[in-house]
Amino acid sequence: MSGLVVTNPPRADREAVDAFAGYGVATIHEAQGRTGLLGSRLRPVWSSGRIAGSAVTVTVAPGDNTTIGVAVEQCGDGDVLVVVPTSPCEMGYVGDLLATSLQVRGVRGLVIESGVRDVADLEAMRFPVWSTCISAEGTTKGVLGDVNVPIAIGGQLVSPGDVIVADRDGVVVVPRLRARQVLAASKERDEKEARSRARYAAGEIALDVNGMRPLLERAGIRYVQHESKVEEQIP
Amino acid sequence: MSGLVVTNPPRADREAVDAFAGYGVATIHEAQGRTGLLGSRLRPVWSSGRIAGSAVTVTVAPGDNTTIGVAVEQCGDGDVLVVVPTSPCEMGYVGDLLATSLQVRGVRGLVIESGVRDVADLEAMRFPVWSTCISAEGTTKGVLGDVNVPIAIGGQLVSPGDVIVADRDGVVVVPRLRARQVLAASKERDEKEARSRARYAAGEIALDVNGMRPLLERAGIRYVQHESKVEEQIP
Amino acid sequence: MSGLVVTNPPRADREAVDAFAGYGVATIHEAQGRTGLLGSRLRPVWSSGRIAGSAVTVTVAPGDNTTIGVAVEQCGDGDVLVVVPTSPCEMGYVGDLLATSLQVRGVRGLVIESGVRDVADLEAMRFPVWSTCISAEGTTKGVLGDVNVPIAIGGQLVSPGDVIVADRDGVVVVPRLRARQVLAASKERDEKEARSRARYAAGEIALDVNGMRPLLERAGIRYVQHESKVEEQIP
Amino acid sequence: MSGLVVTNPPRADREAVDAFAGYGVATIHEAQGRTGLLGSRLRPVWSSGRIAGSAVTVTVAPGDNTTIGVAVEQCGDGDVLVVVPTSPCEMGYVGDLLATSLQVRGVRGLVIESGVRDVADLEAMRFPVWSTCISAEGTTKGVLGDVNVPIAIGGQLVSPGDVIVADRDGVVVVPRLRARQVLAASKERDEKEARSRARYAAGEIALDVNGMRPLLERAGIRYVQHESKVEEQIP
Amino acid sequence: MSGLVVTNPPRADREAVDAFAGYGVATIHEAQGRTGLLGSRLRPVWSSGRIAGSAVTVTVAPGDNTTIGVAVEQCGDGDVLVVVPTSPCEMGYVGDLLATSLQVRGVRGLVIESGVRDVADLEAMRFPVWSTCISAEGTTKGVLGDVNVPIAIGGQLVSPGDVIVADRDGVVVVPRLRARQVLAASKERDEKEARSRARYAAGEIALDVNGMRPLLERAGIRYVQHESKVEEQIP
Amino acid sequence: MSGLVVTNPPRADREAVDAFAGYGVATIHEAQGRTGLLGSRLRPVWSSGRIAGSAVTVTVAPGDNTTIGVAVEQCGDGDVLVVVPTSPCEMGYVGDLLATSLQVRGVRGLVIESGVRDVADLEAMRFPVWSTCISAEGTTKGVLGDVNVPIAIGGQLVSPGDVIVADRDGVVVVPRLRARQVLAASKERDEKEARSRARYAAGEIALDVNGMRPLLERAGIRYVQHESKVEEQIP
Repeated sequence: MSGLVVTNPPRADREAVDAFAGYGVATIHEAQGRTGLLGSRLRPVWSSGRIAGSAVTVTVAPGDNTTIGVAVEQCGDGDVLVVVPTSPCEMGYVGDLLATSLQVRGVRGLVIESGVRDVADLEAMRFPVWSTCISAEGTTKGVLGDVNVPIAIGGQLVSPGDVIVADRDGVVVVPRLRARQVLAASKERDEKEARSRARYAAGEIALDVNGMRPLLERAGIRYVQHESKVEEQIP
Repeated sequence: MSGLVVTNPPRADREAVDAFAGYGVATIHEAQGRTGLLGSRLRPVWSSGRIAGSAVTVTVAPGDNTTIGVAVEQCGDGDVLVVVPTSPCEMGYVGDLLATSLQVRGVRGLVIESGVRDVADLEAMRFPVWSTCISAEGTTKGVLGDVNVPIAIGGQLVSPGDVIVADRDGVVVVPRLRARQVLAASKERDEKEARSRARYAAGEIALDVNGMRPLLERAGIRYVQHESKVEEQIP
Repeated sequence: MSGLVVTNPPRADREAVDAFAGYGVATIHEAQGRTGLLGSRLRPVWSSGRIAGSAVTVTVAPGDNTTIGVAVEQCGDGDVLVVVPTSPCEMGYVGDLLATSLQVRGVRGLVIESGVRDVADLEAMRFPVWSTCISAEGTTKGVLGDVNVPIAIGGQLVSPGDVIVADRDGVVVVPRLRARQVLAASKERDEKEARSRARYAAGEIALDVNGMRPLLERAGIRYVQHESKVEEQIP
Repeated sequence: MSGLVVTNPPRADREAVDAFAGYGVATIHEAQGRTGLLGSRLRPVWSSGRIAGSAVTVTVAPGDNTTIGVAVEQCGDGDVLVVVPTSPCEMGYVGDLLATSLQVRGVRGLVIESGVRDVADLEAMRFPVWSTCISAEGTTKGVLGDVNVPIAIGGQLVSPGDVIVADRDGVVVVPRLRARQVLAASKERDEKEARSRARYAAGEIALDVNGMRPLLERAGIRYVQHESKVEEQIP
Repeated sequence: MSGLVVTNPPRADREAVDAFAGYGVATIHEAQGRTGLLGSRLRPVWSSGRIAGSAVTVTVAPGDNTTIGVAVEQCGDGDVLVVVPTSPCEMGYVGDLLATSLQVRGVRGLVIESGVRDVADLEAMRFPVWSTCISAEGTTKGVLGDVNVPIAIGGQLVSPGDVIVADRDGVVVVPRLRARQVLAASKERDEKEARSRARYAAGEIALDVNGMRPLLERAGIRYVQHESKVEEQIP
Repeated sequence: MSGLVVTNPPRADREAVDAFAGYGVATIHEAQGRTGLLGSRLRPVWSSGRIAGSAVTVTVAPGDNTTIGVAVEQCGDGDVLVVVPTSPCEMGYVGDLLATSLQVRGVRGLVIESGVRDVADLEAMRFPVWSTCISAEGTTKGVLGDVNVPIAIGGQLVSPGDVIVADRDGVVVVPRLRARQVLAASKERDEKEARSRARYAAGEIALDVNGMRPLLERAGIRYVQHESKVEEQIP
């Protein structure tokens, strides 16, 4: 517990952030060398589309959302609020009231390694949330965490101003200083996938599209007719 | 295993029950002093709306739904069936047939700390269910539990005639004798939240709406510019 | 790790497979003597309808989807791809590209005891998938598993050519040689349930429809008025 | 949250409690009709032996152990402290200091549906604990739960003065008013098992000791030699 | 549910089985090409040493251990009993009585994808067990599974007569017909590890013992002094 | 995946590290303001005592331990190896061979958010390990992670040179630059606890030792005799 609030932190490049919204989380994860993916327990609470924004980070005490109230004041247009309790708990840290505040300020969504509540309202408001649970259990107030310090969430480090992209596949973080580079790599990968997709749709298969047959040979692939005695083929 | 069936148990006040359907589970949970919430593993199996009813309680043997058949006869209009196995298991205790019986009798929904099946049918029938899993595995018959005795489900005590309210945030139980009192508190809290919501929508934030700034001062909040050396600020 | 690919394996009888699509997983599970149900952690990733097909089985190394690429070539119209890692892991083994390949070849769906990605695309394509998680994390290539050998998935044995049926209740496997027999039993059970449903809808209850009252007697059921002292009735 | 402390609650019959320590949790669970077993997630934190005592019940707020401090004062010789948070959390509610207080007052052990800490000290002190986790994370103080009210823990109802028995197999609760009756049944079952054990040790098997062969016949058991074609025997 | 009991199934080669007891589960798993490992949830219930035996397989109904009683009669000296419920459940399927029967017949241990009870007795008897939980909850009788048919347990296929080896690292299955071959590979791997161990103990490291440095070069390893600006090195 | 190896990173102050070994993880966690505790799933694999050391950090690919081999070369006397996979998996990353290498170099223990194997050997060698599972499943080689970069493990940030302390209660990280300060606070807290322990042992209770009675008054504590009607007291 600390109570440290870092004001005017760096923000991710807005143009890059907006461009990231055009690429899937899976594509971006690959494009930055298979890094930055937050654990698969973080799921969208309603079927919102994809969001991309600049991280405002928050640590909260277990069962206490005071610091989220503090963080709202540090949030602005284009941000994504990223919240982690200092110890695992399943509670409804954010409901429709805090979500209203965030939405009014232009915050694009919430990523929280715990729960939210009023999910019917969140959907009606079209406020996107990725969380690890849904819980009607509210939180108390009084203990302070930190705002805009580096945090560990979903097994990843997130610093204020990092790019957060989230869609139905999950949530990925791109370090702020690498945003332009990863964006370019994402574009490249996306174009390559588009070309592949056309070939797959035309009936080609990955073994040929990716030239994998020599690799399979080296790995010792053996094709046997079903009639032959399978068990004797197992080395 | 017992086989005790308590007939004509008390019912929750019908007018109160119906009024509870106007308040969210999160609001009611707060209104009764943050008590009565069943664990967050109980989730709606389809996106039904909110229900409120009077609890008919059932304990079942693991993998045996005989007692649910017995309980149907004890159910009436405005009830919610609340079922817990005497030992944790993941099975499809209730399918479309039992659900039909319940719906015909005016039962408003089912809360079960195990699984159901035929979920496509349950949705087509518009029969609301909160469960901890979905399983196609049916149950056997022959071992008796109890009907309308106090049970422990989702970490809470539920007695027959208690009010059950369930929505997308989860399930809450209100003790029968406290229904009127909790209803009034829910109404009060709901009105307060409506007033707050208008202020949040207008751009005010929780720190000011709730007068939290003195609390933050006492808790030792420190605002530092990002340029300053953050690490040295951590106590 | 092996690299064994069994070609032209037996297929389930096509007519039987298509007929199975008319019966729910729960019904089929009952009809074959409560066997063959894959564990309840396998869930549909989008609300596709029911599918039935002939199993093409695949084992993959943890985090490596090479063998799925190999299996595509072995798949044909009316198949269902059934994939299990040799050790549990949560990764996105299949995305929109592999799904395109499968769909082009007439594969009816995918059952995988791990994750998939690009789920928004999978839904847009209407390609049905049952998995244990969703993960944006892609896999590497290079290590071979096997294709069309018997596998253990969801606690069941699945052999190539077995019938796979999947719907919102879960996934069931019917051994190839028992397909006709189980199909007949499913039809019989389904008709019996239809008759019961009409009786339930008309207000009859299971105790009478199933003639359960003598069973309850033998099991020692005791009906007591709520006014009597309940605790003394508990043996 | 309530703050209700019920003083001088009923205690379980001391003689019965002490006698229960002679019977295993599994035996007692059977003897009271397969009821009262707390969920298998409650495990001994060190290999203490069996304890039996009279329940002092406590509800605590998530992450706040104030009420345990209050409960200590209500504990006396022969008691077992039974603690449940009002919402699931994994924290170190009790350490060596509270354990010292409990031990000084003659409390025989602790059952808690959350965590403890200082486990090396707890073992050195020989203070028995059953918990769902071990966590070094301490709790805060300030929010009150209740002492000596009925609670739901491990899926069971426990009232103050109920008998708690715990060993390496788990934890069972026996309602206070049924203690004598269940004790007699436990003694009977234990003696029966002792007789069976001698027969098993002499080489007899359960099929004969329990006269199960007719049951197997009725259930349709079929013995087939391995040489015969097994698959055709499966119905 | 079936009731099929296959008598006089094949047994694993006794000499090979006994020799397997000299090699660790991890070594055997590697030696057969990283296959056959049962999932890591199967843990020893007390710190028994390593066992090796010939599998007698059993499927049981959830919560019903009738078939284990039947299987005892099919067990003999050098066997290991391998039990899986047809649907996941956490119950105490085997206690000291059945264990006595098994031990009298020379059975070397039990592997069960569910629970056992009387664990203090099992330890006192020195009867080794690997299970997924410990539960005092006993089972009922009346529903039949199968004995000595192929089963799926811990994500693996186990057939009667396969070799089962279990130690503190887990449980591995070796197909009966591959026993001699895997044994030889295990011996070879074990000797290689013994040679490596001596080198490691003398201070050499894996990079050199295994000649990994060229691999690292190809994989693009970069060594940078801590003083250089680390972040700029991340690609 | 990156392949970055940071050489000669800062080390924690050796004298401070050694002094930390005198204080429990719970005490240190409190002393640094309830921060730095790694999640409770990290458990000792054998009952080693407490260790304290300077962190060498490693990220590994799922199922690939190449980078641990690389990290060994960067380890020295007094270090603790801290390993996290870039995506969750349960495998045996470290066995007796790597442990031998680490022990030879003076490494005091291993903390890994995945599994280890050869645990009987690890215990025989007296090499302390905290892990989230035990698995006989070995890893492959070929994909590089990073060494001595900041990592997220157990929900905490760990940088190379941070102090790691681990005992039966869990694992705590103390930032390198705060080590002296936290050590002093730990000493102070430990002395305070020693004084309290003496008072508790003499029969005083926490309510008095900590002067909590006024707090309880303010929180609204109500003591009621069991004879009075409890239910009416619940607000």
